[in-house]
Amino acid sequence: MAVYTDISEDELFAFIGHYDIGSIISCTGIAEGVENTNYLLLVQQNNQPTPYILTIFEKRTNIADLPWFLGLMNHVANQHLPVPRPITAKNGEMQHPLAGKMATLVSFLSGISCRRITPQHMSALGNMLGKFHLATHSWAERPNPFGQQSWHDLYETIAPLAHQKLPELATLIEDSLEYLHKNWPTSLPKGVLHGDLFPDNVFFQDHQISGVIDLYFAASDFFAYELAICMNAWCFENDGLLNATKARYFMQHYHQIRPLSAEEIEALPLLAQGAALRFLLTRLQDWLKPPAGLVRLKDPQEYARKLRFHQQIRHVGEYGIW
Amino acid sequence: MAVYTDISEDELFAFIGHYDIGSIISCTGIAEGVENTNYLLLVQQNNQPTPYILTIFEKRTNIADLPWFLGLMNHVANQHLPVPRPITAKNGEMQHPLAGKMATLVSFLSGISCRRITPQHMSALGNMLGKFHLATHSWAERPNPFGQQSWHDLYETIAPLAHQKLPELATLIEDSLEYLHKNWPTSLPKGVLHGDLFPDNVFFQDHQISGVIDLYFAASDFFAYELAICMNAWCFENDGLLNATKARYFMQHYHQIRPLSAEEIEALPLLAQGAALRFLLTRLQDWLKPPAGLVRLKDPQEYARKLRFHQQIRHVGEYGIW
Repeated sequence: MAVYTDISEDELFAFIGHYDIGSIISCTGIAEGVENTNYLLLVQQNNQPTPYILTIFEKRTNIADLPWFLGLMNHVANQHLPVPRPITAKNGEMQHPLAGKMATLVSFLSGISCRRITPQHMSALGNMLGKFHLATHSWAERPNPFGQQSWHDLYETIAPLAHQKLPELATLIEDSLEYLHKNWPTSLPKGVLHGDLFPDNVFFQDHQISGVIDLYFAASDFFAYELAICMNAWCFENDGLLNATKARYFMQHYHQIRPLSAEEIEALPLLAQGAALRFLLTRLQDWLKPPAGLVRLKDPQEYARKLRFHQQIRHVGEYGIW
Repeated sequence: MAVYTDISEDELFAFIGHYDIGSIISCTGIAEGVENTNYLLLVQQNNQPTPYILTIFEKRTNIADLPWFLGLMNHVANQHLPVPRPITAKNGEMQHPLAGKMATLVSFLSGISCRRITPQHMSALGNMLGKFHLATHSWAERPNPFGQQSWHDLYETIAPLAHQKLPELATLIEDSLEYLHKNWPTSLPKGVLHGDLFPDNVFFQDHQISGVIDLYFAASDFFAYELAICMNAWCFENDGLLNATKARYFMQHYHQIRPLSAEEIEALPLLAQGAALRFLLTRLQDWLKPPAGLVRLKDPQEYARKLRFHQQIRHVGEYGIW
């Protein structure tokens, strides 16, 4: 959950005063999300209740990059993809101070996130992600702060604690860091990724994707690396094994929109190891050094298991996807 | 925060199918509240988004008492007080199973809770509470599980830990338990109290109270005991002292609706000690034995300070309220 920042009624009214959106009905703190504080704001607009999302940016979001993030969301929304659209205030700005932090107001997206993922969900996700990558292709670059080059330094901050508390995990990580450093691809197609496309961040309605939220990890990296992130986040079953059917539906429907090259497909086992390592590292960091206010810790072992799974794959054909 | 129970889309659709309320737009977990799981549900109704609150009852709410709670809310709402009104399903029921627990759907109330309390808020609260007590007067009794008679047993469950970790608090509590056991009033006017009327549970809109939520601690006890609970929860400043102006506005506006007897007024210092002890005990219990899933611990020392404050009061006149 994520209400880290309480706002007083005076602060709220001052913030909303920047916008031309009607009068406040209610402002309710949202439980989901672990990075920023989100409120579901209801306002009375054209005689009916209209929802918005009010986001207050906490420490982990780089405020200097906010114009890039908000511009990206606007750019993607303009291409008719269901991402939150930042609301422009009366002074033309899309961000304003609130409770000593920076905050923004974005459009509300209907739908609910799915807890039981089916192959049909994966078709819709593949299709959406293909369109998302085509849409972001033309957007300015932003180096990925959680890309392959960051992993070594990220690990260094927790290495002593990891050795002390979880020596097996430390060994797994160090071996993987070295292997990926030597073998990471250098020349796959690149562009802006969502960067955190987990089931929590996707809403469905009538079997269609109605919302893709939380774009504040968006950054430039290999497109196929995002496929690997999604495969890890969406296609594993509780038994720790990949559901090849779900992965197949996902990849095929992505491929129909943005055809994958042979190099991208071949690189998947490596990219999937990297994608597993990246979330293993940040989850382990939270586990070993819980940030103040972070409420729900996610299990790093889940991603250690996924990393080990991909390490056993010698060739992409062994996934049983194609 | 309080999303303890995740619900799948299938479970949600099955639950909503019991009701005749339109199609689901979204279902968002709410951060506020610590006892139950709450979702803000938006449905499309008569061509406009309409909000409801979906509550899933967690362990601490006695499910056997649900018909009493829901009936009370309906009874109070019928008297035009802004409490959530339980929605009756197509089968006539107001509660249904959801995700292995019991759940209910209630009307949404507009407004926001206030973080900076003014004397004007206290006038509105006193007025509202007077009307609430008149409205509940005719409702069936329910013995207060957190009433004076429960405190000794509640303390017994944590006494050894309290002695070990917070010996000063243990002494304070034991002295207070004994004193209140000997001196607790026996014959003040009684009826159904809200039982948890903290600022989080009251919404304001245009300086009026627009919502009083979370009635699942409602129970029968002395009306004036609820005044003491509110005085503790609303009228103390950060310096640990009572703001007599706020307390005066509160008491006077209550008195205009339900006149307080001389006995009730005389009993306030004692009732306020009891009210402080009651929340000291439950907060200390959570502090010493945190229940699984409880996220935001509240500081027991805040209520120890309030208890000590009231112990110094020898006569109600010393509050400076009247």
